[in-house]
Amino acid sequence: MSGGDKGAVVTLRWFDAPGHGRLEMIDQTRLPAVFAYLPYDSAAGVADGIRTMVVRGAPAIGVAAAYGVAVEALRLQSLPRQDFDEALDAGFALLAASRPTAVNLFWALERMRACRARQGSTRQGSTSSAAIAATLLAEAKAIHNEDIRINRQMGEHGAELLADGARVLTHCNAGALATAGHGTALGVIRSAVAAGKKISVVADETRPFLQGARLTAWEMVQENIPVTLITDNMAGHLMAHGEIDAVIVGTDRVAANGDVANKIGTYMVAVLAHRHRIPFYVACPLSTIDLSVPSGREIPIEERAPQEVTGFRETQWAAAGVRVRNPSFDVTPAELVTALITEKGVVEAPDEDKLRALFDD
Amino acid sequence: MSGGDKGAVVTLRWFDAPGHGRLEMIDQTRLPAVFAYLPYDSAAGVADGIRTMVVRGAPAIGVAAAYGVAVEALRLQSLPRQDFDEALDAGFALLAASRPTAVNLFWALERMRACRARQGSTRQGSTSSAAIAATLLAEAKAIHNEDIRINRQMGEHGAELLADGARVLTHCNAGALATAGHGTALGVIRSAVAAGKKISVVADETRPFLQGARLTAWEMVQENIPVTLITDNMAGHLMAHGEIDAVIVGTDRVAANGDVANKIGTYMVAVLAHRHRIPFYVACPLSTIDLSVPSGREIPIEERAPQEVTGFRETQWAAAGVRVRNPSFDVTPAELVTALITEKGVVEAPDEDKLRALFDD
Repeated sequence: MSGGDKGAVVTLRWFDAPGHGRLEMIDQTRLPAVFAYLPYDSAAGVADGIRTMVVRGAPAIGVAAAYGVAVEALRLQSLPRQDFDEALDAGFALLAASRPTAVNLFWALERMRACRARQGSTRQGSTSSAAIAATLLAEAKAIHNEDIRINRQMGEHGAELLADGARVLTHCNAGALATAGHGTALGVIRSAVAAGKKISVVADETRPFLQGARLTAWEMVQENIPVTLITDNMAGHLMAHGEIDAVIVGTDRVAANGDVANKIGTYMVAVLAHRHRIPFYVACPLSTIDLSVPSGREIPIEERAPQEVTGFRETQWAAAGVRVRNPSFDVTPAELVTALITEKGVVEAPDEDKLRALFDD
Repeated sequence: MSGGDKGAVVTLRWFDAPGHGRLEMIDQTRLPAVFAYLPYDSAAGVADGIRTMVVRGAPAIGVAAAYGVAVEALRLQSLPRQDFDEALDAGFALLAASRPTAVNLFWALERMRACRARQGSTRQGSTSSAAIAATLLAEAKAIHNEDIRINRQMGEHGAELLADGARVLTHCNAGALATAGHGTALGVIRSAVAAGKKISVVADETRPFLQGARLTAWEMVQENIPVTLITDNMAGHLMAHGEIDAVIVGTDRVAANGDVANKIGTYMVAVLAHRHRIPFYVACPLSTIDLSVPSGREIPIEERAPQEVTGFRETQWAAAGVRVRNPSFDVTPAELVTALITEKGVVEAPDEDKLRALFDD
């Protein structure tokens, strides 16, 4: 088994087998009632897993997409090079079309494309399909292991921002389940706890998919980190009563100017935190920063199915005939972000110059 | 049948019968899937109906409590005066303990107490128990009919604030179901539509009890007023995209300084509206204004059961072992309120002087 984070939640895992292998992902649509892995052996399967949110969270989507390319390449490795290349291109396209907002998906696919390109073009014909598949699998494993390492680095930088005794609000799930392990926002909390600080978490339930109630609460309960669940509309009340010391969230894409796309509702939390002078932190690996989009206005916002808003799974409660909006993300302007927490350190009051500097060697 | 609003939702209804009668209330815990009335013939029964939210919404709670006293008096009317008075006092106490935040409950009970006091004390013994019961029933019917008339007056005043084509966000349900008929916030929308304006409604689903998804959406669909359902955390995104022109909500209690207690989440909507320079209106009958509390800090905020937050009814989704907060209301400071809409007219930028002036004759 590759990747994984000793003693913690293993969101994705890889089993090697001679000539092929198997990707497994925790089915996050069924947590916490059912803890079960689903197996994947094709790009179409992984794309479907991303679309239906078996796996979610920007970093985890990136790792899943990388393995999606790898399993597709292994599945096709007996084809002649030209057929292999064409079929693999179709696999890349399926994965790229799975969800639009999290840039880690495109980042991971681009990295896999670059890895393939380094093996030589079809015309050169110098490398076998099987050899390319093996190289792509190695690259997916590298992305997987890097993600865990990066989360731990972010955690250490971010932990210094949290005082002993801090009551930290988080929205959605930016935990181990949203990554290959440790987590981005929850990684900061885990690292602070590991450093001996007493931290308690307030989790927004995060309608409509309930990542807070189902996933963040579950992760924190597993590790005995005190966690209190609220509905999304209670955060302002708690802030007004002085019950929140800091906010930490993850992100699906950060624009060049520092605007932050994240789970719907993040913007409301940021506005409230600003009003109450509570620091608002965004845990953000460099793979989530997209310097090609100037501001949040250019980040595509996914709209999902109305049935998510009219109920939850098979339990449907809304009045028949009602129209629905279901934007899955919103944009928090950079002016409301106290600091980005990256694997290269904390970036206070982020702007374009500071973000570009992160990519200088 | 008494009360009721021709052609509209009849939240509570009274059936006369010789020597007694029957109160029926729509079971709002089962809407919209099941539309059914439940019968009530005791104060204990009505208190339970208020506590379990068969009936909810400040004005409707007030009317229900008045009928609760009346049915209790009818139930006890064969008792001698002293026994009758003592047993009725216990009924008043049960009703007063049902829910703490909506002041209309206490307003209605006070009015019923004053009505009884006018019939003479036990010592005087001049009035029979049955005669007092009949008078209390007449007072409950008067409160019932007044509520509908007041809602229509608020509707007419408030409708002038809405432009033709306005897209109006509302939180929770301040509709016919929250009152004896017509509604407070939705009453304003109904009156604007009746005046020929094209209005569309955006309804926050309003976790945890989902009054927006279940009740507001249902009321609007019934009357073909365009309504779009969102989760509570989407309001900021829509405001940032210029998709909301005004906010109208109801209220459970307004303090002397103009602070507004209303369904949890109202405060977040008000802060967002302020940031986006969107007018924030509160539809508020005079019976909801409580000059005895100086500010919102002194308004008691009910905390309800954790099972409302960890799921919805029998569908429970949250991780086991998580703590829960469940404040049912929050306080919006007067500075964020563009205007109160009352039956005596629109009060812009409400403050203590303006509120006290409403009660001058």
